[in-house]
Amino acid sequence: MAQKAAIIGGGVIGGGWAARFLLNGWDVAVFDPDPQAKRKIGEVLDNARASLPGLYDMPMPDEGTLSFHDTMAGAVDGAAWIQESVPERLDIKHTVYRELQDACDADAVIASSTSGFKPSELQENATRPQQIVVCHPFNPVYLLPLIEVVGTDVNKDMIGGVEETLRGVGMFPLMVKKEIDAHIADRFLEAVWREALWLIKDGIATTEEIDEAIRMGFGLRWAQMGLFETYRIAGGEAGMRHFIEQFGPCLSWPWTKLMDVPELTEELIDQIADQSDAQSGQYSIRDLERHRDANLVGMMRTLKARDWGAGAILNTHDKTMNQTRVVPETLGDIVDLGKPVKTVDRAVPIDWTDYNGHMNEARYLQAFGDATDRLMGIIGCDAEYIATGGSYFTAETHIRHLDEVHAGARIHVETQVILGAGKKMHLFHVMYEGTRILASGEHMLIHVDLETRRASDPAPQVAEKLKRLAAAHAGLPRPEGAGAAVGVR
Amino acid sequence: MAQKAAIIGGGVIGGGWAARFLLNGWDVAVFDPDPQAKRKIGEVLDNARASLPGLYDMPMPDEGTLSFHDTMAGAVDGAAWIQESVPERLDIKHTVYRELQDACDADAVIASSTSGFKPSELQENATRPQQIVVCHPFNPVYLLPLIEVVGTDVNKDMIGGVEETLRGVGMFPLMVKKEIDAHIADRFLEAVWREALWLIKDGIATTEEIDEAIRMGFGLRWAQMGLFETYRIAGGEAGMRHFIEQFGPCLSWPWTKLMDVPELTEELIDQIADQSDAQSGQYSIRDLERHRDANLVGMMRTLKARDWGAGAILNTHDKTMNQTRVVPETLGDIVDLGKPVKTVDRAVPIDWTDYNGHMNEARYLQAFGDATDRLMGIIGCDAEYIATGGSYFTAETHIRHLDEVHAGARIHVETQVILGAGKKMHLFHVMYEGTRILASGEHMLIHVDLETRRASDPAPQVAEKLKRLAAAHAGLPRPEGAGAAVGVR
Repeated sequence: MAQKAAIIGGGVIGGGWAARFLLNGWDVAVFDPDPQAKRKIGEVLDNARASLPGLYDMPMPDEGTLSFHDTMAGAVDGAAWIQESVPERLDIKHTVYRELQDACDADAVIASSTSGFKPSELQENATRPQQIVVCHPFNPVYLLPLIEVVGTDVNKDMIGGVEETLRGVGMFPLMVKKEIDAHIADRFLEAVWREALWLIKDGIATTEEIDEAIRMGFGLRWAQMGLFETYRIAGGEAGMRHFIEQFGPCLSWPWTKLMDVPELTEELIDQIADQSDAQSGQYSIRDLERHRDANLVGMMRTLKARDWGAGAILNTHDKTMNQTRVVPETLGDIVDLGKPVKTVDRAVPIDWTDYNGHMNEARYLQAFGDATDRLMGIIGCDAEYIATGGSYFTAETHIRHLDEVHAGARIHVETQVILGAGKKMHLFHVMYEGTRILASGEHMLIHVDLETRRASDPAPQVAEKLKRLAAAHAGLPRPEGAGAAVGVR
Repeated sequence: MAQKAAIIGGGVIGGGWAARFLLNGWDVAVFDPDPQAKRKIGEVLDNARASLPGLYDMPMPDEGTLSFHDTMAGAVDGAAWIQESVPERLDIKHTVYRELQDACDADAVIASSTSGFKPSELQENATRPQQIVVCHPFNPVYLLPLIEVVGTDVNKDMIGGVEETLRGVGMFPLMVKKEIDAHIADRFLEAVWREALWLIKDGIATTEEIDEAIRMGFGLRWAQMGLFETYRIAGGEAGMRHFIEQFGPCLSWPWTKLMDVPELTEELIDQIADQSDAQSGQYSIRDLERHRDANLVGMMRTLKARDWGAGAILNTHDKTMNQTRVVPETLGDIVDLGKPVKTVDRAVPIDWTDYNGHMNEARYLQAFGDATDRLMGIIGCDAEYIATGGSYFTAETHIRHLDEVHAGARIHVETQVILGAGKKMHLFHVMYEGTRILASGEHMLIHVDLETRRASDPAPQVAEKLKRLAAAHAGLPRPEGAGAAVGVR
C-alpha cells in the first residue's frame, strides 16, 4: 500500500513537495486554507509531470492519490510524513505543530520547510519534540535534489529514517551536523542578496546585469562543482593550498559592504521590481517556470550522462526504481522467453523534444541504442564484460518513423532477436506509447575486440545466452518492416 | 591577416586567454618569465581544443600562430590587444604598464584581468591612461563567456571597440557602468567565500558539504537564471514585488557572520586543504579540469539548444562565424550545383561522446538530422517557411556506421539529392573526417501539412528549388550503400 504524506501549506514550496511525493508513488493529502490552493497545486503538478519523469531512464512508480482537506486533522490521518510549509513566523509554526500533534501518528515525521529557524526553536513547547525536524528544500522542489536536514539530540532515533525517506523520493539529504540560523545554503543566499541590494541601490548594476554576472560565469561553475572544488582547480597545478594563500589576503580588502544592511525603502523596492520587469517582463511567471524546468532538466541530464553531482543522484534513483524490474537485467529476469523483450520503459525527457514538444529524430535512435544496450546486458555483455575487452558495435541501422510523441509521454521498446550467431547480432526494436506504434529500429551489430577494433567472436557465456534468446525468438513472426530499404516498398 | 594578441602573464587565466584568442583565429604572443609557461599553456590549450570547438555548430576559424617571447616588447610588437594577467599587486601592474607602453602601439588595447582593482587605479601615472581598461574573465576563460569590462571617462573612445573585439571571440562583455572595487561578480564570490570560511572554522560544514549545498540546489538555478529571475519565480504568481516583501524582512535576522573576517590561521588553512583533499583528492587537478570542461560543455550545449543564457551567446557566435559561409544557406550560395552539398562542418562535442571519447551512435543521426535541416534551408524550407505551416518530416532512415570518430574531431557531411519530387525528398548523406568516411545516412522525407500532420505538396518555390537541385544531382553516380537493407549484402 502507498505511504501517505500530508502537505501543510500548499504554496510554491508545499506544492513542490506534493508533486515530489505524488510522482514517487505516495498518496498526498493537502491542507491549505487558500481557496486557490487546488488550482495552484494543479499548476505545479503540471510542471512536475512534464519535467520530472523524463529525468529518469526508468518509469517512475504509478502516481499516488491526491486529496484536499479542510482540517489539518483530516490531512494528517494515517500520514507517515507531514511537511510543514507555512509562513516563516515562529508563533505560527508553534500553533500549527500543536494542532498537528493533537491529530497525527506519534511516530510520523513532522518536517519543516523553514529556511531560517533552528530545529531547537521549532521544538520549543512541543508535545513530542522528537517528531519535529528541519527538511529545507529548494525551489523547484520536484526537480532540485538538495534537502538540508537539521535535527537536535532528541531526533536521534528518527533521523536515519528521515534520510532514507528523502532518498526514496530521489532527493539528496544533506545531513547538517550543527544547527545554526539559516542552515548552510541560505547563509550564502543571504550574503549574495544583501550585496545585490547594495549594487542596485548604488546604481552599479541592474537586476539584469547582476543575473548576467552570475549565469554567464560562476553560476555555470557552481551548478556542477560548488565553491571549493572550483577553487581547487583555480589554483592551477598547485591546488587548494596555493589558492588560499593567493586569494586569502584579498579577504581583508575593503571590497564588500556587507557590514551593513540596506534599508528596504519603497524606493528601493520599486527600483528592483521595475528592473526585474524590464529584464523578464516579456515572460509570464508560468513561462519562466517552464523555461527554468526545461533548462534544469537538460543540465541535470547532462550531469546524469556524466554520473556527476546532481546527475549521480538521478542514476542512484534509477537503480532504486528498477528494483521492481520493469525492464529485465538478465536473461533469468525474463518471464516469457518466447516474446519480444521489454528493453526500454521511460518518459520522454524535455531535452529530447523540439520547441513544439515533439521528440527529435535523433532521440528515436538514442532510445533504440538504450534498448540495444539493455539487450546486451541481458545476454551478459554488461559493463563488467566490456571491461574485459569485448563489446557489440552497431554496424547498420534502419529506422521507420511512424508516429509522433510528446515530452512527458511514457514510451517503451520491445526487442526481437532476428539473428544471434557468430559475430553477428541482428535486432528489431519496436517503440510504443501504450499500444500505439511510434517507430521501428532494425540494427545489425558486430562483436568487436576493443583492443584491435576488429570483429571477433563473443565469449562463450555471452554467445550461449544470445543463442538461447535467438532460438526462443525464432518462432516469432518476422516483424513487419524488417529487411526494408529506404524508399523501397 | 590574423590580428595579434599579446598575453602578459601565462598562468591559469593568461593561458585561458591565449586559448580563447588562438582558437578564434588570432595570432598569440606570450610573455611569461616562468620557465614552465610553455608547458602549462600547452596543457590549457589541449583542454580548450577538446572542449571549445564542439560548443559551436560551425567550424571555428583556423587557429592562429602561437609564439613565446623573452621580452614584453617582443610580445606586444604589432599586437592590437594586450591582456595583462600578472599578480594582483598594484605596484607590479604599474611597472608592467610602463614597460608595455614604451613598446606597444599607441592604439592597442591594454586589458587587465584584475579581479579587484578599479581602472582608475590601474591608469594612475600611465603614459597613455586611455589605453588601459579592466577586462575581468572567469576561469576557464576559454569556455565561460563572462567578461566584466570596466573603464573610466578617459576610455570613452575605445570602449566600443573593446566590446566588439570580445564579442568577436565569442564572449559576453558585461559593460559595467561605474567602477567599484572587485567589479560585480567578485563581490558575490567574496561574500560567499567569507561565509564559507566561517562555516568551516565553526565546524558547521566541510568543504564537501558546502559544495553539495551549492551544486545540488541553487547552483543549478544560477547557471541559467541568476539571482533575480530565480526569485521572480519564487514569489509564485505574485512575482518580484511579493517576493521582496516576503523575503525582505529576513534580511535583518542575525543570520550571517559577515560583519567580521575570519583570520586565515595555519590551522584554518590546514583544515580547508585537508577537507578538500578528502573531497576531491581522488582526482588530479587535470582530471578535475577535464570533468569541469565536459560538464560545462554539456550544460552550455543544453542552454544552446534552448537559446537561453550562455547558450544564446553561442548561437550568436555561430551566426558570426558562418558569415564566411563554410556551409551554404541558400541555393545561391552553392558554388557547384553538380556536386554533393556540404551541409555540416563542425567539431564533435564532448557531450556527443562516450567515456572513451567515441561519438555515440545516436549522434550520427543528430549530425545527419542537422544536415537534412540545412538542406531544407537551402531549398527554402527554412524557419520562415515552416511558420507558414509546411515542413519535411523524416519517414525512414538507414545508417551505416563505417568508422569511429573522437571528441574534438572536425567532421563534415556531404549531401546528395537522390529524389526530390512531389511530396518526397530522398537524401543521401556521407559523413567524413577529412577524407575518411565515417558513416552514411539515407533518408526519405515527406512534406507535411503541420496543421493536419498529413502528407502534402510543398509550396511551389520550395518544390522548384528542390527540383533544380535534384536535376543537378541526377548526373552523379548512385552512392555506394544507397537502397541497402539491414543485413542484406
